[in-house]
Amino acid sequence: MTNKGLLLVVSGPSGAGKGTVCSRLLSRHSDIFLSISATTRAPREGEVDGKNYFFLTEKEFKDKIDNDGFIEWACFCENYYGTPKDVVEKMLNDGKDVILEIEVQGAMQVKSEYPEAVFIFVIPPSLDVLKQRLTGRGTETEEVIEKRLETAKWELSNAVKYNYILINDDLDNAVNKLESIILSEKMRTARNCELIESFIKN
Amino acid sequence: MTNKGLLLVVSGPSGAGKGTVCSRLLSRHSDIFLSISATTRAPREGEVDGKNYFFLTEKEFKDKIDNDGFIEWACFCENYYGTPKDVVEKMLNDGKDVILEIEVQGAMQVKSEYPEAVFIFVIPPSLDVLKQRLTGRGTETEEVIEKRLETAKWELSNAVKYNYILINDDLDNAVNKLESIILSEKMRTARNCELIESFIKN
Repeated sequence: MTNKGLLLVVSGPSGAGKGTVCSRLLSRHSDIFLSISATTRAPREGEVDGKNYFFLTEKEFKDKIDNDGFIEWACFCENYYGTPKDVVEKMLNDGKDVILEIEVQGAMQVKSEYPEAVFIFVIPPSLDVLKQRLTGRGTETEEVIEKRLETAKWELSNAVKYNYILINDDLDNAVNKLESIILSEKMRTARNCELIESFIKN
Repeated sequence: MTNKGLLLVVSGPSGAGKGTVCSRLLSRHSDIFLSISATTRAPREGEVDGKNYFFLTEKEFKDKIDNDGFIEWACFCENYYGTPKDVVEKMLNDGKDVILEIEVQGAMQVKSEYPEAVFIFVIPPSLDVLKQRLTGRGTETEEVIEKRLETAKWELSNAVKYNYILINDDLDNAVNKLESIILSEKMRTARNCELIESFIKN
């Protein structure tokens, strides 16, 4: 297990800034990779197959489901989204760390198959900040904002299923903390058994 | 639990350099404390009561054992050594992080009573380095060195009971890694339940 990469699962409510934290982390580390999702929705202008998403037909997607080809998948707004297993496993086996930036439901699917993955839940520094960020530019109705807050609270109620709570107070600080999680997870005993064995056996 | 300090238990074979790593960590952080052991052995020249050790009489020590006053204790070479519970618990309750630099047997006593403590096992970068360090200045007999190596191997065989394996390759690097462990442990979900609750309830 020693040389296998870490599988990092990052979730958090909308407005927590998980995407920005992950992007900044990737810009610092060329040996950490963001998993690219597959989807059946049509590419938007400028989106590139294999870069933004793997664009699949519904038949291709369903065949992949049948062949256990996804780490997790879901259907939102009549489109399928999923994390292709083959790409991620190849990277992990090559010793590369892989980040899945996914929703809570998807994360729980990952947990059942990859219990050794590291689950990180990103939250804003306070409820007030969350509310501010969910309010957006002030163009949304009260009803929309209330709905977003309810969704955020449901997501937060699932945070206890994650290993770490990462408070995104300041971007660089949050990325430093994420780096600490990665560094310390690599030191976890379960990931260093072979090393210990090598000391004892020789 | 949010505001309680971390209890860090650091062990490792002789020659791993755990003492140096802990000292350097303490020099960087005035809010992390090294627990002072109690002992019944006589003070050596220059040793100060309450600084190097708490020097107790055998009666005082045994009374403290009877009153559940130690986190862990042991008897080596006819002298008692132990970690006083009251001092450590006060610091933890005050939100201070406390390091216990103790032997494997002591660490396992701590684990049964403080399962939330963070157990860190320090090892040298390789078996060769360990052998070199155990050889010392070349003044010891083969037999003594062999005995030390056997002890080290027994200690290493217990490393799997710890949470983290910290390779002491370079002092500053090792201290950085120890800092990462502390930082990431503070982010562990079990230590942030109240925070999550505060988001959901409001």
